[in-house]
Amino acid sequence: MRSVDLSTDFLSDEVSRLSDSLKDASVEALSGITNRTCKGSEWLGWYDYPKRSGEGLLKKIESYKKSMNIEYDVVVVIGIGGSYLGAQAVTDALSHQYLPDLGGGITRAVYVGNSLSANALTEVQQFLDTKNPIVNVISKTGETTETAIAFAFIENYMKERYGANDVAQRIVVTTDAESGMLRSLSEDRGYKTFDVPRDIGGRFSVLSAVGLLPISLCGFNAREILGGADALFASVSSKNGDGGDHPCLKYAQCRVASFKLGYKIELLAYSEPKLRSLINWCQQLFAESEGKSGNGMFPVGASYSADLHSIGQMVQDGPRTMIETFLSFRCLDSELKVTEADGYSSNYEHLANVLVEDINRNAMLATKVAHADGGVPCLELSFEALNERGVGGALAFFELSCGVSAAMLGVNPYDQPAVESYKRNLFGLLGRKGFESLGENLRNRLSR
Amino acid sequence: MRSVDLSTDFLSDEVSRLSDSLKDASVEALSGITNRTCKGSEWLGWYDYPKRSGEGLLKKIESYKKSMNIEYDVVVVIGIGGSYLGAQAVTDALSHQYLPDLGGGITRAVYVGNSLSANALTEVQQFLDTKNPIVNVISKTGETTETAIAFAFIENYMKERYGANDVAQRIVVTTDAESGMLRSLSEDRGYKTFDVPRDIGGRFSVLSAVGLLPISLCGFNAREILGGADALFASVSSKNGDGGDHPCLKYAQCRVASFKLGYKIELLAYSEPKLRSLINWCQQLFAESEGKSGNGMFPVGASYSADLHSIGQMVQDGPRTMIETFLSFRCLDSELKVTEADGYSSNYEHLANVLVEDINRNAMLATKVAHADGGVPCLELSFEALNERGVGGALAFFELSCGVSAAMLGVNPYDQPAVESYKRNLFGLLGRKGFESLGENLRNRLSR
Repeated sequence: MRSVDLSTDFLSDEVSRLSDSLKDASVEALSGITNRTCKGSEWLGWYDYPKRSGEGLLKKIESYKKSMNIEYDVVVVIGIGGSYLGAQAVTDALSHQYLPDLGGGITRAVYVGNSLSANALTEVQQFLDTKNPIVNVISKTGETTETAIAFAFIENYMKERYGANDVAQRIVVTTDAESGMLRSLSEDRGYKTFDVPRDIGGRFSVLSAVGLLPISLCGFNAREILGGADALFASVSSKNGDGGDHPCLKYAQCRVASFKLGYKIELLAYSEPKLRSLINWCQQLFAESEGKSGNGMFPVGASYSADLHSIGQMVQDGPRTMIETFLSFRCLDSELKVTEADGYSSNYEHLANVLVEDINRNAMLATKVAHADGGVPCLELSFEALNERGVGGALAFFELSCGVSAAMLGVNPYDQPAVESYKRNLFGLLGRKGFESLGENLRNRLSR
Repeated sequence: MRSVDLSTDFLSDEVSRLSDSLKDASVEALSGITNRTCKGSEWLGWYDYPKRSGEGLLKKIESYKKSMNIEYDVVVVIGIGGSYLGAQAVTDALSHQYLPDLGGGITRAVYVGNSLSANALTEVQQFLDTKNPIVNVISKTGETTETAIAFAFIENYMKERYGANDVAQRIVVTTDAESGMLRSLSEDRGYKTFDVPRDIGGRFSVLSAVGLLPISLCGFNAREILGGADALFASVSSKNGDGGDHPCLKYAQCRVASFKLGYKIELLAYSEPKLRSLINWCQQLFAESEGKSGNGMFPVGASYSADLHSIGQMVQDGPRTMIETFLSFRCLDSELKVTEADGYSSNYEHLANVLVEDINRNAMLATKVAHADGGVPCLELSFEALNERGVGGALAFFELSCGVSAAMLGVNPYDQPAVESYKRNLFGLLGRKGFESLGENLRNRLSR
């Protein structure tokens, strides 16, 4: 069995035909990555990172963990965008939903500095008062507004709580290897550091120290994650993505074909609530890589069956403007059966003693057919078991498929120039030096 | 100051013009609700519920709470779709993110039975083992698959833990007043019951026992919620929604105009992470009410500033197919200031000692201008304080505005016929009596 399967049986004929015609283009896009000739090729470090640098990183993390002379029961991860979405994708997918540290040597992570909410900071501090935290701040420079504010706040808290001398034991910094505010500050204060690789952008960085350090600090097996990812990369690059037939390339063909046929939204549907953060990570990956010069379907997560009772009506009978990808991990490993129940109507009889996950799986199939019949082209992606190796494979799959599809759309997947617009406006409104006239102009427009 | 404000300054000229021309249509749609002449008028119970039945419900809840002869530290809410989204909207908006029971007499709620995940059931049981739970199951009939499976599981757990005699103290049922499986089962087992009003559909039910019972069991002030809602309803119905100028009607005009001009997505952006469940509730409200016969913009939540580092690039420079509504509560009541920090770059100077919520507010304004300049028509909705009264006003605002906009689109806001498609397919796949041939047909299609 392959580590990933893609079923295209419930795609529309129109999307299927156009998708098939894009096979060669996808192979070409793949070779742009493997030969390092594509747009943005200076950012391709993610592609061979597990093979090239994985072992070195694992050793560095292991040696850091051994050197830690402290106990901790929560990992505070400070970062925004690509600096936290990958780690959260993994830790949420593999953690207990209510009792993250229940058995198995797993420590809970909390993700801080990904909003500008004052409540969020105050409440995380109140929570940390009840715990024994360590901190991993992640930022290429340290100058991102959200990260800088949150780190100043949390660092101050840690200093007050543990004393300026001991705090260096509890703060580890992931930043640029040589330059930037966070680098120099770490040297001044004696914080241990890990590097943000210079050839990997935020949303492709989960398999580097950016993701794997916090994941490892929580107790998950980073070696298995890298192993799953490396196997996926290898399976695609062998034989040029099977001449365009590898699921990773097929998925890119289907998404590009759907976009070119006018579809505006890709629903990413999943039936295990723990996958929400993995889908959030996918959302950033696709939206920020493809959403340029009018390109890209808007990626939206749908947690089923909850959301069938929410957006289901519109998916089935609203504007025909979306495609849907059903995402699952094959082996969920639960033997839980539906409880036999007294006093229930005869409509319940066919459920009693059935495996709950069989019902869950059938609900996804039932939905796929219903939505396809309603005019929504449907894809189904399934990965291996929901464990470190399986998740590692999924991360690599989406990174590579996205690199291919964005190249097929003709955009550079590795930049995000438009994100600067709101940041400049914010500098203006907050009175940062050099942005005074922009600020005045904005205040005038806002007070009209 | 009004309890709700709507700014339309950053809408496009095209949307503004069409929106203005829809003023009379919105007033007419409103009178279809107030006169009970609209499509689906048998489902208008939500509109005057606070005034008509609020006091009676509050008394019944109070008397039930007084009669409870037990202690509890978690409220297990079992239900799907409209049966839980409203309660979760309120409890999440008003609770501490990490320590829900920190001070103030608030008890944590957990929401169960809104997926078919076996993990979710197993893990909630492991969590309940560490707590002292009560259960509120909410379903018009009790026959919804997710609810039936979860309730059988949790009821069985409660019986084993507390004994068949004492369990009736810990389970309260919200269901149809007279008929259905859950009604007869409650009578058999002596469970206390509350009614799902017969003239209110799920997604409009938060202000009835469906929402207010679990909200009250968690310790929030249901009277204030109803008061905020009632005031909003009254402010709209007086003077026919100010002849179409009331924010509630203006919002409907803008959304209908945007849809008619071809916009496919409405982003609902917010900058306080606690509002996520309120936005999920809005998503169901709009998608299930409007998403019929090809109508409706797809509503998608965006949690800023996190998601600016995720979907921001695509919002700014992807396909011009979305409008954006920025949603906030005016008074967040936090005095937290940005920490002064040593060793930070000069770019940080303008931030130090500024109120964090001022930065948060300015980030939303900065984003609104940036996205509007990028071709995204932007609206800004602001409500009163983020407390029971403010949230009650917001719930009423969205219900009424949605009732108006759906009527303007010509659809019945109160049904959801297309949701049946996947349910029928699931009955077929699971072998329910009467669905055998559908099941065979589906299995053939799926194994092709």
